[in-house]
Amino acid sequence: MEDKAQIQEAIKIQGEVVRKLKSEKASKEQIDEEVAKLLELKAQIGGDDGKHQFVLKTAKGTRDYNPKQMAIRERVFNTIIGCFKRHGAETIDTPVFELKETLTGKYGEDSKLIYDLKDQGGELLSLRYDLTVPFARYLAMNKITNIKRYHIAKVYRRDNPAMTRGRYREFYQCDFDIAGQYDAMIPDAECLKIVHEILSELDLGDFRIKVNDRRILDGMFAVCGVPDDKFRTICSTVDKLDKMPWEDVKKEMVNEKGLSEEAADQIGEYVSMQGGMDLAERLLHDQKMSQSKLACAGLSDIKLLFSYLQLFQVTDKVVFDLSLARGLDYYTGVIYEAVLSQAGVTPACTDAQNGSPAEESVSVGSVAGGGRYDGLVGMFDPKGRKVPCVGVSIGIERVFSIMEQKAEAAAEKVRTTEVQVMVASAQKNLLEEKLKLVSELWNAGIKAEVMYKKNPKLLSQLQHCEESGIPLVAILGEQELKDGVVKLRVVATREEADITRADLISEIRRRTSEA
Amino acid sequence: MEDKAQIQEAIKIQGEVVRKLKSEKASKEQIDEEVAKLLELKAQIGGDDGKHQFVLKTAKGTRDYNPKQMAIRERVFNTIIGCFKRHGAETIDTPVFELKETLTGKYGEDSKLIYDLKDQGGELLSLRYDLTVPFARYLAMNKITNIKRYHIAKVYRRDNPAMTRGRYREFYQCDFDIAGQYDAMIPDAECLKIVHEILSELDLGDFRIKVNDRRILDGMFAVCGVPDDKFRTICSTVDKLDKMPWEDVKKEMVNEKGLSEEAADQIGEYVSMQGGMDLAERLLHDQKMSQSKLACAGLSDIKLLFSYLQLFQVTDKVVFDLSLARGLDYYTGVIYEAVLSQAGVTPACTDAQNGSPAEESVSVGSVAGGGRYDGLVGMFDPKGRKVPCVGVSIGIERVFSIMEQKAEAAAEKVRTTEVQVMVASAQKNLLEEKLKLVSELWNAGIKAEVMYKKNPKLLSQLQHCEESGIPLVAILGEQELKDGVVKLRVVATREEADITRADLISEIRRRTSEA
Repeated sequence: MEDKAQIQEAIKIQGEVVRKLKSEKASKEQIDEEVAKLLELKAQIGGDDGKHQFVLKTAKGTRDYNPKQMAIRERVFNTIIGCFKRHGAETIDTPVFELKETLTGKYGEDSKLIYDLKDQGGELLSLRYDLTVPFARYLAMNKITNIKRYHIAKVYRRDNPAMTRGRYREFYQCDFDIAGQYDAMIPDAECLKIVHEILSELDLGDFRIKVNDRRILDGMFAVCGVPDDKFRTICSTVDKLDKMPWEDVKKEMVNEKGLSEEAADQIGEYVSMQGGMDLAERLLHDQKMSQSKLACAGLSDIKLLFSYLQLFQVTDKVVFDLSLARGLDYYTGVIYEAVLSQAGVTPACTDAQNGSPAEESVSVGSVAGGGRYDGLVGMFDPKGRKVPCVGVSIGIERVFSIMEQKAEAAAEKVRTTEVQVMVASAQKNLLEEKLKLVSELWNAGIKAEVMYKKNPKLLSQLQHCEESGIPLVAILGEQELKDGVVKLRVVATREEADITRADLISEIRRRTSEA
Repeated sequence: MEDKAQIQEAIKIQGEVVRKLKSEKASKEQIDEEVAKLLELKAQIGGDDGKHQFVLKTAKGTRDYNPKQMAIRERVFNTIIGCFKRHGAETIDTPVFELKETLTGKYGEDSKLIYDLKDQGGELLSLRYDLTVPFARYLAMNKITNIKRYHIAKVYRRDNPAMTRGRYREFYQCDFDIAGQYDAMIPDAECLKIVHEILSELDLGDFRIKVNDRRILDGMFAVCGVPDDKFRTICSTVDKLDKMPWEDVKKEMVNEKGLSEEAADQIGEYVSMQGGMDLAERLLHDQKMSQSKLACAGLSDIKLLFSYLQLFQVTDKVVFDLSLARGLDYYTGVIYEAVLSQAGVTPACTDAQNGSPAEESVSVGSVAGGGRYDGLVGMFDPKGRKVPCVGVSIGIERVFSIMEQKAEAAAEKVRTTEVQVMVASAQKNLLEEKLKLVSELWNAGIKAEVMYKKNPKLLSQLQHCEESGIPLVAILGEQELKDGVVKLRVVATREEADITRADLISEIRRRTSEA
């Protein structure tokens, strides 16, 4: 397409970019990315003496999961899915990409982070940005008005990755949502109960669940004299309170967003308030706040919510916090966010991908969040019919990071297979006998392995067991074959016992169910 | 970007396209797609009176999975993963997109089916086309020379979808691969054993596993007088033998690919051959075939493979078939493919997505395939170091289609949740008591539900149980509360018994473990 001179010029410029980054000691990732572009250009004109050199890396902001990470991931998923199923949720799946227009107008400013697919003819497509919008599309498309479902899948955001803190461009979301017209706050309370159960079971240390309501925020803005057209932008400034001190938030409100000093101060008073049902009660009688019908509706619902949470016995972890705002546009009622309070998660984890030591430690932060969004499904319905929804999303990548760190810190040996027994031999020329035996074990449902060598050394077979945590070895030899037995060895204790072939399977089952 | 007049012109043309398709009674899917484009154009200029109309559909060639389909999918995955784990496999995961150049030059002609991401700045990316190339990239990148791993994930192909036959643009692959330098045919035989186990366990009806070797094909082409530079193209013509009669295949070879009639006839003789170890033995002494060292190496390995398959007792289903070619470029040795032989799968399944009756029935076809690819990892290694690999991919979408059909045909009630007990009440004003009880059950690990209404009718609570297959109802009433009991009702038999609160949890466990 482009002519050779143009490409060579581009190579020269790109070469400069790489040199500059290296001299500036830029991050390995950044350099890799620019080197990749350079090599791509060179490949176009058969550079590097025509020998194309691959850049061996995953796309920026993404990572592979190795078997150990997968073992941890499986454990975490099992806990979460177990909880979702305990609460009677079904599950659905949607495609990784949606029609571009399905995602349009749902994420406000964040829309610029959406990955688009190249127009290769046909429909214009984008990778999903979350699981909530596809869920709403699914409900509207199938005219579903009632469902309790979970969905665990990857979503995509062209965000600035901070992989050492568990922030990626490709990451999992674990969503649980309840759609349907129900009595107030009952499904909302169940969502909070679920967060409580999952965080307790995952044993991530102490946590708090902050709760607020969009209607309370909007009512508060109104009574504090924020002009209607500034609600949203002031709301997103309030959302920064967990990362910035009040003084800076106030400055942004006044200097950047043009709010009056007086209004800002009034907001400041409210957003410093934290409490429980009593605070909601008190604000219902607050001279200012009680002037807003919207705020009163939100406050009454917070009271009702707390009464249900008391029945669920989870109020110890829940706090009504007027500073909680949450970013997304689509929330209409209750919102919540769970944060870990100073768990033992400070030691920095290294990023396995680029091998560089982590500059940042896993920061204590939000590990779950959600809220009520009663208008989203209606945006997809041709007649605008609404389906009220409330849901929660578990911030699973951060959980993975913490779990990996914990496994690392405890020097825990994470098994990556579940093999119960290794079929081995002490002498040569027993491959056929070993294959016959391992096949018998497989057919009986025993998890078993054999080495893919004709005559492996016994020592290397035993070493493999030690390394991968296989508890038992079934050893065959000439004598054992003659006697119709197998020598069953316990790897940990080195004890050995001759077991008849007829008893072998039940013996392996017995020993591995004990373990 | 474009000006309004241009867009209006485009709308006019697109309107014509839609009208034409409708008048031609084109497929609903095709019309939908063009209507989508039309609406997109209209949206650009605020058409439809500025009220943007969404097209409620998933991208072409993709589908949502509803809870029933997910329940079937989970069952199938459990069987397959169970088998992979039984054979001691670890699992890994890779990102859904790779650097574009990682995929370049791996798929031959099929490269045109790769989905590219839009260039939004940064790296050029493509959606993965299979799991094998990312696996090879992973091995080279992490310098792994030995691994036995499975990977279950979605892959993407801009192919012509035939959704009623289980062919999608987004679909699952279930791959099991063994990488490492081992003694010949031992891992290869295990792959075939795995196919045999999985297809038997899934109970899809009778099947056959065809086996061949790329070296036998290449040797055969050589001795039949196919010019070196035509091996690959003739190979891909041979690959069509499962869909076309020999006469047509021959015609393509002679007329389109310029092969001599004589060479084609000789190929024709060989590719009609099927057998077992004996056929390999016979061909080793075949006057022509024995002239090719390559073919002889392949034939010896087939013999060895069959000897191992005999030990695994799976030769009843395996056939050495010289017509098996398989499409992909990267195979270097043994190749195989499993086909279902006329199972009871003829009734057409309807496509849930577009609601149109299926034109095609689920055709009997390939449900698993794979082979040896010893060169692929070396393509990624800067020094070209090879890691021999052999693997198998389960054609899971076709399996899903068949299972869905079977469930449909058997009018089987597929449960989509695992709820064991519903907490219900006969009288009003018992919401608090119900929430307390359901919370106790959740905390004890019981899968339980309660309706999200303050005062639901008992009948509607019982109906919900019938519909979703919940076996037990725990009914609370004033009297029960007074007596400290719960009325436990068996939905199927309508039997009721008063159970003390202290015994309730163990009673529910006892009854649901029986079921």
